[in-house]
Order: sequence, then structure tokens, then C-alpha cells
Amino acid sequence: MASKEEIEALIKAKGDEIRQLKAEKSEKDTILAQVALLNELKAKYKETTGEDFGPPPSSSKKKGEAKKTDGAPASGLKVDPRKAAKEARAAKRAAGGVDQATSTASNSGGNATVAATSNSGSAPPVPSLESAKYGNLPMVQSLGMTDRVWGRIDGLSPSRAGQRVLLRGRLHTSRAVGKGVFLLLRQGIATVQAVVYQGPGVDKGMVKFAGAVPRESVIDLVGTLTAPREPVESATARLVEVQVDELYVVSAAENVLPFQLEDASRPEASEDPEMPSVGMDNRLNYRWIDTRTAANQAIFRIQHGVSQLFREFLCERGFVEIHTPKLLGGASESGSSVFTLTYFDQSGCLAQSPQLYKQMACACGGFEKVFEVGPVFRAEKSFTHRHLCEFTGLDLEMAIHEHYYEVLELFSDLFIYIFDNLATRFAAELQAVNKQHPFEPLQFCRPSLRLSFAEGVALLREAGYDASEMEDLDTEKEKALGRIVKEKYKTDFYMMDRYPLSVRPFYTMPCPDDPTLSNSFDMFIRGEEIVSGAQRIHDVELLGERIDAMGVPRETLRTYMDAFRHGALPHGGGGIGLERVVMLYLGLKNIRKTSLFPRDPKRLAP
Amino acid sequence: MASKEEIEALIKAKGDEIRQLKAEKSEKDTILAQVALLNELKAKYKETTGEDFGPPPSSSKKKGEAKKTDGAPASGLKVDPRKAAKEARAAKRAAGGVDQATSTASNSGGNATVAATSNSGSAPPVPSLESAKYGNLPMVQSLGMTDRVWGRIDGLSPSRAGQRVLLRGRLHTSRAVGKGVFLLLRQGIATVQAVVYQGPGVDKGMVKFAGAVPRESVIDLVGTLTAPREPVESATARLVEVQVDELYVVSAAENVLPFQLEDASRPEASEDPEMPSVGMDNRLNYRWIDTRTAANQAIFRIQHGVSQLFREFLCERGFVEIHTPKLLGGASESGSSVFTLTYFDQSGCLAQSPQLYKQMACACGGFEKVFEVGPVFRAEKSFTHRHLCEFTGLDLEMAIHEHYYEVLELFSDLFIYIFDNLATRFAAELQAVNKQHPFEPLQFCRPSLRLSFAEGVALLREAGYDASEMEDLDTEKEKALGRIVKEKYKTDFYMMDRYPLSVRPFYTMPCPDDPTLSNSFDMFIRGEEIVSGAQRIHDVELLGERIDAMGVPRETLRTYMDAFRHGALPHGGGGIGLERVVMLYLGLKNIRKTSLFPRDPKRLAP
Repeated sequence: MASKEEIEALIKAKGDEIRQLKAEKSEKDTILAQVALLNELKAKYKETTGEDFGPPPSSSKKKGEAKKTDGAPASGLKVDPRKAAKEARAAKRAAGGVDQATSTASNSGGNATVAATSNSGSAPPVPSLESAKYGNLPMVQSLGMTDRVWGRIDGLSPSRAGQRVLLRGRLHTSRAVGKGVFLLLRQGIATVQAVVYQGPGVDKGMVKFAGAVPRESVIDLVGTLTAPREPVESATARLVEVQVDELYVVSAAENVLPFQLEDASRPEASEDPEMPSVGMDNRLNYRWIDTRTAANQAIFRIQHGVSQLFREFLCERGFVEIHTPKLLGGASESGSSVFTLTYFDQSGCLAQSPQLYKQMACACGGFEKVFEVGPVFRAEKSFTHRHLCEFTGLDLEMAIHEHYYEVLELFSDLFIYIFDNLATRFAAELQAVNKQHPFEPLQFCRPSLRLSFAEGVALLREAGYDASEMEDLDTEKEKALGRIVKEKYKTDFYMMDRYPLSVRPFYTMPCPDDPTLSNSFDMFIRGEEIVSGAQRIHDVELLGERIDAMGVPRETLRTYMDAFRHGALPHGGGGIGLERVVMLYLGLKNIRKTSLFPRDPKRLAP
Repeated sequence: MASKEEIEALIKAKGDEIRQLKAEKSEKDTILAQVALLNELKAKYKETTGEDFGPPPSSSKKKGEAKKTDGAPASGLKVDPRKAAKEARAAKRAAGGVDQATSTASNSGGNATVAATSNSGSAPPVPSLESAKYGNLPMVQSLGMTDRVWGRIDGLSPSRAGQRVLLRGRLHTSRAVGKGVFLLLRQGIATVQAVVYQGPGVDKGMVKFAGAVPRESVIDLVGTLTAPREPVESATARLVEVQVDELYVVSAAENVLPFQLEDASRPEASEDPEMPSVGMDNRLNYRWIDTRTAANQAIFRIQHGVSQLFREFLCERGFVEIHTPKLLGGASESGSSVFTLTYFDQSGCLAQSPQLYKQMACACGGFEKVFEVGPVFRAEKSFTHRHLCEFTGLDLEMAIHEHYYEVLELFSDLFIYIFDNLATRFAAELQAVNKQHPFEPLQFCRPSLRLSFAEGVALLREAGYDASEMEDLDTEKEKALGRIVKEKYKTDFYMMDRYPLSVRPFYTMPCPDDPTLSNSFDMFIRGEEIVSGAQRIHDVELLGERIDAMGVPRETLRTYMDAFRHGALPHGGGGIGLERVVMLYLGLKNIRKTSLFPRDPKRLAP
């Protein structure tokens, strides 16, 4: 068995050899083969000495983390070429069996090479790109960690001009101009212009390589930040530009995409029949490309914002987040429109809402104020612009002391909080949506406007609609009422209460002053419903009467009823449809635009 | 038709009459009947004048809100007794058809009466309790809103001694002592002692009524806050006490509960076979009572805390919250252990994890860093202490630049953030759990300890266990390793990486330096797994190879694979089981204790 010193010498020699191969621009696989041998030597070193090969970890890094250190010092050693070929195959397997050299569409570039470095711990060598100015990066497979810092486009400013920057992003567009190529690099909704121009440090081959990288590929750019004389109008970072001297393809896109981002991003307003547009099905079938548009990036960041603000507001007020089961033994509200399934040897169904569970937690379980954010399943065969078979419910339920208007006051404050903070925290995103889907900013009152259902019906009748105080409004009348209310009260958001009891679910508290009405409410944005809620019945006798009156079999609700036999707080609440709020807040025309992977009766993929 | 003045006179007369009936302590139904008549008169007033009867709204209240105002001025008017009886029935119907006078178990008390008050807007009269010192409150049905402020036990302090307080809560216990009753009122995990003692303003009947209120009933107490000479050891608010002079039952519990809260709250440590205990099934069948114990209130508040802290940490770092579909066309990871269902005319299943979707959003869809909190469904017929068929997944997925240790660093920081903030923000809750379920506080390192799987196996072998580097550890060995690690490194939380490739899912990135291993990791608390994660394959060719190697039919993953053809970021992530984290952090022995309404192969209700 070799001594510690002998193995050290072999490791050093191998390090040197790899350095040499790199300098000679040898084939990547050849180099990887030597790296594999180097690792074997290091393993032998550890086996022999009980220690890892290499300098001790620096104190600035966290315990146990891999570090980049300098390459092993030089000393010569040759290898058997047949053994090298065998090791090359092994290294290729280790790298996942993919030949990265051929994985991008362009043949014009070189390939980034790999330098062997010694490491503390068991971490593998770190790829060094010092000698390679462009090419296809070997698959990022956690070979090692360096101290390099990747920048964010959002953080670039002209004050940093002259500094070196390293950016990873997608190639948004590229445009050859004379001896150079102008690239637009994208991260989220931010873009920056990067210039690859033939000159010192940038050869003709590199310019050609840069010009051939397929759009939407993931690339790394290294270069110097400059402040252009004229603002770059095509970029979001208008006041800076990167003079690129290194360019690596991290993950190449296929040359032909299912559709062009440009087409998917074209403003609705200027839709020109001559220009290609992208249909909804095409978008949804390749949703991971569709969501890359600035408008879609913004829509889902705004959706994220609505959920965060909903929770922020409620947590501040002592609400507790709960998670209620989606797998149920019976239907959650009624037997209709549920997805059924086999649950081992029982039959089950999917929750249409967390209704009965949030009530039990709030009124009976000791939590008083609860909320839940979770999926809601509706097996409705509706092909409308506003129905989904699976959507995200933002539900809340709270104890009330005297009146369900306590719930309405909270909802009023909640929505004002959401609207106000969307406007301030998501200004860039709102602008991005507006650019493609122009919309009027939401108008709303403080506090929110509240009408009774009867008042709503009266407004419709005044305007010539045939509406009844004892029947729910259909979509068309709701929209009409939205227009009337907007005209009269200058608000796109309002609440309507005191709905007829007969059109509300069995758990709805009847009105104390009119048994045909209920302590219920809906809320609307731009004439479409986004919230439904009510005071709920907490008296078990009345609950039983209403269950019977609505023709729901008591047996399916036995446990739910039991919950109200052991002391129950008066309570009320409501459920918000997240996708609808985002759609209507942004004035979008189809709820599929605000669901990441929408589900309708025909669509169950991707 | 009556003139405005005539109706006004009638309304005033009716108000006076109601006042008179109230003074005479008439039957509630009789009074309600008159209230119904009063409302009819007011409706007629509005019909005639176009205005609501009553003084204009005060400027301090929000627009459109109901207000309490003084009763209508006096003037005499008698009614036909037969008409009164008819109206009483109508009023009863209007009140929901329930006779509140008989809805509580106790007959010893009076009934709170209802005073007619005039109101602005269409809001109904407000119940006034001025003349009634105790009794069963009419069902809270949103009759009106007052300006009364209900206090929170947490907000009571001896510095407020002498002040009047109004509290709604549950009757935790009551104990008759001489001419008085000591009540313990509960809100969440907070309790305060309330004393009903015969003397000025409190008669014998009231003491008797107070003593007969069933435990767990929801009650309103009005009284004066005092600072007792000795701290009240049985209450959490030890330094205050309420001298009660009004007591109303809002919702009476049945006299016999399925089990006593006292029995359900008994400390594990002192479990005496002589004392009644409550079995898991009994607890879960009546979960809404079980969750009222201090320990359970605390457990679910801590669960809430874990989710909030998870999101807080990630939002701060630019992660975007997504909602991925739970209804899928194919199995999410493999064909086993999924719940299947009929989706209109297709066959579908429930997501076993958001895995493939979060990857698409993160690596392909432009979001780079995403998280999701949502239900996860596993049709595993496991009856263990740590398996649920539905649990809450806290999932994250992030782009990495070089190495999946970037993910591990984030997880390390994330868990330290969660542990630190639970300890500070949820100290009272931790104490409440500890009281019933004593546990050792969690020990952990900064940064978190990380071992390789091989190192874990070596530790087990050293301790005499038969473990293989190429096979996953079973539960028993994981627990043993947890003990060994705790002993050696003084930590209850650690990470283990570099698992054998063969025991991980197809999308796991192989190790660059050993094709039999993978860039994967698990995390453990007290020797049990709480997180599983890895670098994922972003190269479509390698992905295809691994899919084939693992024997997964490519066709089911066609769309998923397509997503990686259009440029993909190197990425990694992991999924946390929320219920497990809470269970293990608190040293609990059964995951059913940390799921609000747990689902196992036998349990689908409540």
C-alpha cells in the first residue's frame, strides 16, 4: 500500500496533468477522466490517512461546506491512454451519461473546460472557467462550490459602472449588428442588454457562438458593467449594459419553440390580425413557456401578493391558520358537484369548501378566529370564463359578538388593505400586466360600499331589468348591477347582504326581522362575485330545522350537528376565490389566466 | 294611508309599550311579538317617507352600519291579546323557530329580555341587558350592534382593577362555595377566575343559576375587575379576578359531554391508571372538544407558527408562492399509492406531492424560487404513528448556481429561523404543551449538522447495527442513528446527503463523482424524517435515461419532460411534512395529535 507521501505526490502530479490538458484545450471527457482518477487518489488518501486531502477549511465558511481552493501544485505523471479512455466513460456516467458537448444546437462554440481543484471534505472538484471564454457549460451537477456571486438584474445601477458582473438568466432576444451581437438577458420580468463585440478578449468565434445561442436558453454572462450613452429602451434596466467577455450556455433551448414569447406577450389592445397570436390552449399546453411573459410573471407575483396580504392582515388580528381535510366521507355542503373517490374500503369525496370544518374549529373547537388557504374542488361541468374545477380558497371564519356586520367590517378592512398594498408593493408588476392587458385601476370606497340585496334588485329594476327580491341574480344581472353601482357610487368593489334565505346553504342564519331573508352576503369586483359568506347557525335545533327544510339528509351531517351540542360561539365568515380576485382586480377576461395549471372539465394536464 | 306623523306616534307608542312589558318582566315571546309589530311600523314609515325612522347616523360609525340608540319615547297604546299571540309566533319564526327560553339545560335562571330600540338604517332592534342580570341570552342572530367592547383575558391586568369588564368565553369549571360560585372562564388557553357572590346586585337566584350552567357553555360575564389578595393558581390570569354581577348563557353545552376536558388534559407523565383517560379514537370522534385542551390549543397555534415562519423566511428571500393542481391526469411520482378518481370522462388521481409542478414553475416557468403550502395525498395503508393519508406539505424549489448545497444552506437557515422564533414567539404555547406532554427542548447546531449517508451508515455500524451503504434505512435504524447523532453531536436536528441513487425518485440528480449515489438529502428531528429533497435533473436526456432506468412509463411524463426542452435552470428543493415537524419538535408520539382532522386508512370522519 502506498504511503501518505506517495499518494500526495500522485495527487499533485494528477492536478498538474489536468492543468496541462486544460491549457491544451483537450476534450472535456479526457479531462473529466483525469478528474475521476484524481478523486480516486483522494479517496485512497483519506483511506490511508483518515483525513481529507487539502488545506484546512477557512473559518469564513460554514462547517462542512465545500470550498474552492487553488489547484494542486505541479509535478509530472503520464497515464496509460487505454485507462484514460475507460475512465472517460466512467466520468461520463458520473456526469449523468449525457454528452454536454453536443447538447446545444450550436456547433460554433468551444466547450468550457474543467479544472481540477483540491477540496476539503468529500466535495468534488470545482469547474473553473478562467481559460474558457465561451461555450457549453458542463451540466451543473454540484461538482463544487465557488465563492462567485451571481448578480440580479434588478440590482444593477450605473453607479456600479466599471465593475465585473456575473449573471445567469434566459436569452430573451439576440440581434447581430456588424461585428457584435446584442443580447437581452432576462430574469423574471427584469431584462438587461448585454453586448458581445469583437475586440480584445472577444474573438470572432465567440461572437458567432453568441449569435447562435437559441432564445430562451439559460446562459451565464461575465462582463463589465457600463452606462450606455442612450438609455436602452428595450430593457427594463435602461441605464446599464454589460460588455460581455465570457458567455456560457447552461441549458440550451430547442431551436424551435412551441410559440414565440414575443407573440405571447403582444398587447391585447394593439392586436393586429396580421401578427401571430397564441391561443389559450396552446399557451396552457406549454404553460412553462407562457408563464415566462412579463404579464404572466406579474400576474402570479400579484396572486402571491394577495395571499400574503390576506394572511398578514389576519395574523395581525390573531387568526389561526388551519388545514382541514380535503378527503371527506360525505359531501361538504350538498351531494351535487363533488368528485367522488374510493378511499380504501370506503367511498369518499373531495371537499367543495372547508366550510363545515372551519366552523367546527372556529365556533366549537376553541380557535375563535381561523383562516385557511387551500384547494377547493368543484365537479361542475361549466365552461365559462370564471369557473374552474379546482381553485384556491382563501377562507376565514370568526366568532362574532352581536352581528355578522362584524365580519363585513373585517372584510372591508381586509380588501382595502389588500388593494392598498398591491398598489404600493406590486407597482412594477401592475405596470407589466397593464402593458399587455390594459385595465382601469380598481376604484373602491373606504369603508366598502354595502347594499342590501333588495336595494340591488331595486337598482336593477330602475334600470329596466326584470329582477326578483326572492331569486338570486344570474351572471348577466350581477354584471349589470356592477355597472349601475360603478356609475352611481364610483366603486368597482362592493358588498351586498340580506340575500333570500332560500338561495343560501342550510347553515346560513336566517334574518331576525324577516324569515324569508338571511344574514348572508356576497362581494363583487367589477360586477362579478369574489366572496360568499354569512352568519352561520350555531344553535343545533335551528340547524336541524334548516337541514330538514333544505332537504339535506341529516345522517350525512350527524357529526357536524353534534359539534354544536357542546357550546358554540356565534360566528360568521366567508370564502374568497383567489383566482377570481386576481382576474377581476386586473380586469382580465379569463380565469385560466390566473391559475397556474388550470383545471376545467376538459383539461387535466399538464 | 297613515301620515308620517301618525306613524311616528304609533312607533313611539309601541316603543313605550315594549318598555313597559320589559319593566313588568313579561314573557320574552310577548315582547318579541311587539318588537315585530314595531318593525312593521318602521317599514311602513320608510315606505311612506322614503327615510329610515330614527336619528341620523353618528359620524363616528362607518357608513351604513347599524347603531344602538336610545329607546323610543313613551306614549300609551294597548294591543289585542289574540293579535299579540299571533305576532309572538311570527316573532318566534323570525328568530329562527327556536324557543331560546328552553334551549339551555338549566331551569333555575331567568331569561334575558329584549328592549326595543330605534335604529338607523334597516338594522333590527338591539337587545338591551340592562334590566336582566342573568339568564339565557336570546340566540345571537344579528339583531343589532352596540358599542360594547368584549375584553380578552390576555388583556386583563391588576392595573385595571376597579374597571368594568365584559367577557365572552367558555365556562371551564364552576365550584360552589358558601353563598357564591367560583367560575373559571376560558378563551383559547387563557383562563380567569370569576366570582358570583350573593350580595348587593347579586341575588340567590343568580348564584343558583350560575352554579347550574353546564361546563363548556359559552357565556357572557359582566363585572368589576379586582386584584385578589392571593394569586389564583388555577387560572392563567393569576393576578386578577372578576366580581360578576351579570351572567348570560350564549350557548349552553349539553350537561353530559362525550368526555371531560379535565380527563383529556391530564399530564402524560402523571398518568394514573385510577384516573379516567381519553383514548385517541374518542378524542378524534369529538375533535372539537379535544382541541379545546390547553395542549391542543397550543399545538395548533405552534403549527400555525411553523407555516407562518416558513413563509416569512422565504418571502423575505424573494420566493413566490404558487398553487399547483391536486387533480392530475397521471400519478405525480409513480403509479403506486395514489387515490384515483373519475374526472368527468377522464380518469384522474390526487397529487402525491407538488413535485413535478413546482419544478416546472421554478426551473422552466420563470419563477426561479417557489414555495407551496398545501395538502398532499398518499393512499398508503400504513397504520403507524407517523403516517397520514392526507398531510400538509411545505414545499420549496429553487434555482441553484453550482451546487445543491445552496439548497441545504437555505434549509439550515430556514429551520434555525423557525426554531428560534418558535421559542420566542410561542413561549406560552410551548409551556402549555410541555405541561401535558413533557418534552426536552430541541437541541440543534448553527449551522445545521450535515452528514453523508455513508457517514450515517458508518455510525450505525460502529454501534453494532447491520446497515448497508446501498440500501435506505428503515425507521428503526433512522431512530437509532438519531440517538447516536444526538449523543455524539448534541443535536436533535440534522441533515444527511448523498443517498444511494437507487432509493430516490427518477428526477434525482446523480452524484458527479459516484454514479451509484445521488445529490439528495433527508432531514431529521429526533431521529425521524421530516424533509426529503435533492438536486433535480434539468437535462432532458439524462431525465429520459433515469425514467427508463427506474421503469416509469415515459408516456405518463411526456409533458413534464417537454418542459425541460426549452431551457431549464439547474435547481433543487425539498418538501417538509408540517404535521411531522410539529410532532417531532414537540416530542409527541403520534402524528394524529398534530393533524386537526387526521386521515388514516380507517378514518375519514369527522
